[in-house]
Amino acid sequence: MAQKPSIPKGTRDFNPEQVAKRRYIFNTIQKQFERFGFQPIETPSFENSDTLMGKYGDEGDRLIFKILNSGDYLSKFTQFFNQRTIRFFEAYAFRLHNENIDVLEFLKNERASSTFYQRFFESELVGSDFKGIEIFDEKYESAIMHTIDENKDEVAILFNDIDDDFKNFDESRKLVASKLASQVFSTWLFNYDSKVSSIISEKALRYDLTVPFARYVVQHQNEIELPFKRYQIQPVWRADRPQKGRFREFYQCDADVVGSKSLWQEVEFVQLYDAVFSALGLKGTTIKINNRKILTGIAEVIGAKDKLIDFTVALDKLDKIGEEKVKDEMRSKGIPEDGISKLQPLFGISGSFKDQVAQLKPILASSEEGLKGIEELEFISEAISTLGLTSSTLQLDVTLARGLNYYTGAIFEVAAPESVSMGSIGGGGRYDDLTGIFGLKHVSGVGISFGLDRIYLVLEELNLFPETIAKSTDVLFINFGDKEALSCLKAIKILREIGVNAELYPDASKMKKQMNYANKRNIPFVVLVGEEEMITNTFTFKEMSSGIQDSVNIDQLIGKIINPS
Amino acid sequence: MAQKPSIPKGTRDFNPEQVAKRRYIFNTIQKQFERFGFQPIETPSFENSDTLMGKYGDEGDRLIFKILNSGDYLSKFTQFFNQRTIRFFEAYAFRLHNENIDVLEFLKNERASSTFYQRFFESELVGSDFKGIEIFDEKYESAIMHTIDENKDEVAILFNDIDDDFKNFDESRKLVASKLASQVFSTWLFNYDSKVSSIISEKALRYDLTVPFARYVVQHQNEIELPFKRYQIQPVWRADRPQKGRFREFYQCDADVVGSKSLWQEVEFVQLYDAVFSALGLKGTTIKINNRKILTGIAEVIGAKDKLIDFTVALDKLDKIGEEKVKDEMRSKGIPEDGISKLQPLFGISGSFKDQVAQLKPILASSEEGLKGIEELEFISEAISTLGLTSSTLQLDVTLARGLNYYTGAIFEVAAPESVSMGSIGGGGRYDDLTGIFGLKHVSGVGISFGLDRIYLVLEELNLFPETIAKSTDVLFINFGDKEALSCLKAIKILREIGVNAELYPDASKMKKQMNYANKRNIPFVVLVGEEEMITNTFTFKEMSSGIQDSVNIDQLIGKIINPS
Repeated sequence: MAQKPSIPKGTRDFNPEQVAKRRYIFNTIQKQFERFGFQPIETPSFENSDTLMGKYGDEGDRLIFKILNSGDYLSKFTQFFNQRTIRFFEAYAFRLHNENIDVLEFLKNERASSTFYQRFFESELVGSDFKGIEIFDEKYESAIMHTIDENKDEVAILFNDIDDDFKNFDESRKLVASKLASQVFSTWLFNYDSKVSSIISEKALRYDLTVPFARYVVQHQNEIELPFKRYQIQPVWRADRPQKGRFREFYQCDADVVGSKSLWQEVEFVQLYDAVFSALGLKGTTIKINNRKILTGIAEVIGAKDKLIDFTVALDKLDKIGEEKVKDEMRSKGIPEDGISKLQPLFGISGSFKDQVAQLKPILASSEEGLKGIEELEFISEAISTLGLTSSTLQLDVTLARGLNYYTGAIFEVAAPESVSMGSIGGGGRYDDLTGIFGLKHVSGVGISFGLDRIYLVLEELNLFPETIAKSTDVLFINFGDKEALSCLKAIKILREIGVNAELYPDASKMKKQMNYANKRNIPFVVLVGEEEMITNTFTFKEMSSGIQDSVNIDQLIGKIINPS
Repeated sequence: MAQKPSIPKGTRDFNPEQVAKRRYIFNTIQKQFERFGFQPIETPSFENSDTLMGKYGDEGDRLIFKILNSGDYLSKFTQFFNQRTIRFFEAYAFRLHNENIDVLEFLKNERASSTFYQRFFESELVGSDFKGIEIFDEKYESAIMHTIDENKDEVAILFNDIDDDFKNFDESRKLVASKLASQVFSTWLFNYDSKVSSIISEKALRYDLTVPFARYVVQHQNEIELPFKRYQIQPVWRADRPQKGRFREFYQCDADVVGSKSLWQEVEFVQLYDAVFSALGLKGTTIKINNRKILTGIAEVIGAKDKLIDFTVALDKLDKIGEEKVKDEMRSKGIPEDGISKLQPLFGISGSFKDQVAQLKPILASSEEGLKGIEELEFISEAISTLGLTSSTLQLDVTLARGLNYYTGAIFEVAAPESVSMGSIGGGGRYDDLTGIFGLKHVSGVGISFGLDRIYLVLEELNLFPETIAKSTDVLFINFGDKEALSCLKAIKILREIGVNAELYPDASKMKKQMNYANKRNIPFVVLVGEEEMITNTFTFKEMSSGIQDSVNIDQLIGKIINPS
């Protein structure tokens, strides 16, 4: 039986038109990246797991696609299984037997016993370190015995009668112990999944472009010149639950500079966003900017310095839930009432960038860091006013709090034009120590990224893709037979040499079928070379949109295709 | 401790220059693909395992990178482990105990016993079907007992003394049985690796572009128009042992047509190879062509129709080992002596395409299929002579036998110019039923591919990359301070708008450092704007290669950058 073909959920096939449209966006962005002096790098699709794991938080770790070791990964697992776990079982079963502990009742309720053993494995006696499980180590054996003894009452409640299955068995304790050991193992396997993963998988698919970039900078530090302005347009993979607009494979487009703290970089990134959206013909985007130092300053001023995340998470909801509910949330997080009243002026902030800054200053008067943040924003804003933007607006947004885990200075987010209901189509910020995780300290970086899939949807909705994108082949030559086809290929060769995309229909099929192919493929011109044309050395040229036909020589044919009326 | 960063073996980082050079090759190929009417598609990096497994032979299956199921893959494994295997252990251990079989000696030599159990698991009693292992199924329990009983003598030889480790144990048979069961499990786990893989992995990285293309055609058959001319340039992954020039991640560039048996496709693919190599400035490539039908015909004529692969493998070595050894190999494969003497004329074949065909014809006179192959080659060769090639030569090579598992008609292979010692830089052929595996029968296809990495090395060796590739930024503006920087950015903005790649050095560092950056980055021009220039509204323009400096206004600056002397 043939398989019914499909692709994994969250992934996509792209047809020729979609590829062309995506490429149009990539090429436009790439051209602007290069205008601004960024250079492309590419990194492998998979990295060593060590490079990626632990860089995106627990949730991120879970969403990283892991690649099974190739070849003999299972023999490695088997070896591991033999050497450690089996021996652990043995020692465990042996001890249970020798000490004559009645554990038969344990087995009644598998789920409950799992919970019981889970608790055991979470105890500090075993700990999260794998090495803890070593055979013949009396400490762990006694730990197991002890845990069981300590919980006898609980055990009695969990298993208050005998499993029917086991009545058929010789009820020897050792067999039971073996069963128990197996259960312990499966619980252990489940709880130690990251450890098991690391035994059978040592590589993982790229989760974003930032961590591989940091790895690249450190690994190649002797080859690159700082400041290093790089851009990277490559796919990333996330094991997220797929939903509308969220995919398991998607492209990221990032530009970053490392090795300079200059605020001119921030200025240039605002210009770069504007240049890309202008080149795409997308008017009315808003480049929102904030600074982590301002958020820290506000938290400081209201006495919630240790509650920066709680505070900003609440503030971030101002648009959605309004002032009162934001205050309620802050109260519930333990931010003091007098702090919240100090916030009052913040809720009324409005007007131009300058106006907003003027209103912010008094609030932050007592925070050195907050004032530093304002100074940075003013620098960027003033430079941008002088230089001017073409299609975008720069807007201060003190509620903007994305990436607070890593951003240390500027924070960017780009909103699509208001006429389109689409979230952010880009974002970025400054991070002070990205490469530190790989051992290269004190290298400041700043970068932005473009949300390709959303930009695609925005351009589609606003009908901003150039019309020429849908057309790939300029002209189709109809095939009337081998002699005619050879004549056609002679002309096609000339056309291709001067840059025309031309093709011959491969078979001498019915005229209707061939014309239909030209229509479906959106090919604007068709050329017919029959017996008569071969004799007179001419071509019958047909414009598909109008249906008008002409008899032309080769030079006229070229003219009609290159400069269509 | 910070990690020392590295990348997985067989993968590569690409620096800006390498990315630019690779892109140059991609873009050149892509442009020619489109000239010939091919349209791009893209498929996901990973496919469902079912789509890929079993399509590349056993060796291929082993080289496919499998992706671990995300999230709870281990709970699935645990569940499986609980439900089947543990129960199997129990029944097994229980029976061993009850029947009082002395199996302690089994455990002496783990490797030997693994072999023993492997043999057991390979027996038809268990078979390769996973469902065979079901607990409480008397058939399997007695099978185990029976196997042990039958092999008692062998067991005695394998284990002629007692393992020291086990002297410390209560030597109860049940414990031993438990150990034994565990060993059986690990052996089983090892032998059933593909089954375990399918439990913990359901997706795999693309191994080539051909199978995903076939899947695409079948899945989207209602959206595409046949004949479908597609090209695809995407990475593929193979868990091959990395070595010089062989990577675990590399790009493939394929163009294929499905849905037409027309030989004009083969003609066009020869032209396409020629067009790409001409566009890359690569002269002297040889496009070798053969036809499977000719190979089949020869095999038929010499009475070795059932030994086609043996015969072609031997013939393929003619260049390397010479006529006599080829004959020896054929003899050793059982090809009859009178068949080999019929081959004699084949070894003397030489001359032009036409000459070779003339020499082949009498050899194949009695084979209908062989003559059909000749006819096809003649058609292609004649068309190509009429149309002409620019940089390549078309050559008949009757020893060419790549892809015999799938090619059914034409077989292509491209050799790099003789001056470069590099193997094949491209290959392809016609396959009659590619999409059949996914349920769409009778769709003929033909395609070629380009070996990007080798083409890169050839262009590098022959110094054929355009010089302009190394340059990314046209002009660097030196930074003397914030006021000057803002002035620079005004000029930079103008330059970028007219297509110049321009950048400002982000910090007001020492002049020497900034000039050094321009040098290292290979930036041809530098502009200096100091206090004086700001007052006079001029720019000091420096050409890095000559060191010549000029004072210019903005229009002159543009002129100097756009039309350098």
